[in-house]
Amino acid sequence: MELYNGLINNLIEELASLPGIGVKSAQRLAFHIIGLPQSRVDHIANTMMKARAGVRYCSECCNLSDADTCPICSNGRRDHSTIMVVESPRDLAAYEKTGRYEGVYHVLHGAISPMLGIGPGDIRLKELMTRLEGDIQEVIIATNSSLEGETTAMYISKLVKPIGIKVTRIASGVPVGGDLENIDEVTLLRALEGRTEI
Amino acid sequence: MELYNGLINNLIEELASLPGIGVKSAQRLAFHIIGLPQSRVDHIANTMMKARAGVRYCSECCNLSDADTCPICSNGRRDHSTIMVVESPRDLAAYEKTGRYEGVYHVLHGAISPMLGIGPGDIRLKELMTRLEGDIQEVIIATNSSLEGETTAMYISKLVKPIGIKVTRIASGVPVGGDLENIDEVTLLRALEGRTEI
Repeated sequence: MELYNGLINNLIEELASLPGIGVKSAQRLAFHIIGLPQSRVDHIANTMMKARAGVRYCSECCNLSDADTCPICSNGRRDHSTIMVVESPRDLAAYEKTGRYEGVYHVLHGAISPMLGIGPGDIRLKELMTRLEGDIQEVIIATNSSLEGETTAMYISKLVKPIGIKVTRIASGVPVGGDLENIDEVTLLRALEGRTEI
Repeated sequence: MELYNGLINNLIEELASLPGIGVKSAQRLAFHIIGLPQSRVDHIANTMMKARAGVRYCSECCNLSDADTCPICSNGRRDHSTIMVVESPRDLAAYEKTGRYEGVYHVLHGAISPMLGIGPGDIRLKELMTRLEGDIQEVIIATNSSLEGETTAMYISKLVKPIGIKVTRIASGVPVGGDLENIDEVTLLRALEGRTEI
């Protein structure tokens, strides 16, 4: 990238450091940004800095928010006695997009992973346990269906069950519209184990 | 996107306005940016603003540069009597990556397109003609192999030939490693027309 002088190279490098943006996309983005009016570029840059400075964790569910509580936790029409535990804000967004879940969430910001040295103290578990001191009917564990997600689910269920709160896990199985022949064996076995009468 | 409060939504919207970044990537980037230290975010934002403010056209070849002349034009070891005419800085970058072209460039910043209302006066043609008053041996036209690129090539050759400067066009044909059966008919015919003795 010795084609361009410092300023352009710097911009390409910074953009390429973002996840999912390779050198080629970074180059395209850089040229696009350089072609925008200065006021637009300043606006985008300021939006980035302001978002970073203003966003914190919701004091209830630990979702990202720029107010003390996120829009979901401050919504009185949601069922605050049902908590769905997810690993990340993106997982929350995925469930929220279904438009059918009425309860609230708890964002762990990670999953237990002995391999990566992430223990129960490194995710937002303590905050979850504090919430369970209130009037909670059910904890739905919606961590990913990966080794880390399953480990985390198991760990949480062992913590929560003794308190006498119902703990459930979202179902594993064949995705809707999925073609059996393209689905891995572990999923097929899970689907078999989790079969229900019709 | 009513899941997040204003600051996060603003950031996602700004990122999604960039080319090649959809809502999902924008969301992922936004969460990544919010997870970075404030100093990193400030640095990225400032790099954007500084690049936009500092970058201008090279006074010789019209490539983007943050100095009066770009590194290629100010390189004394390049052949300044051979000019390759390209549509965009990205096309220049593509040829420069081959590492084998020794001449200099001229960036048009567009191509003639009667359909889009882009005429000869809207691209950097006047600047090219001014350069041709100097000691130029050859003009290599490397505009894209599209309708607009071909139109532009034709237009430039008609302007330059009468001055007595050699005008050439890069070859059209089957790409190296290309499978004949997957190549469109126009390219196959071009390859046939442009055949050379072996």
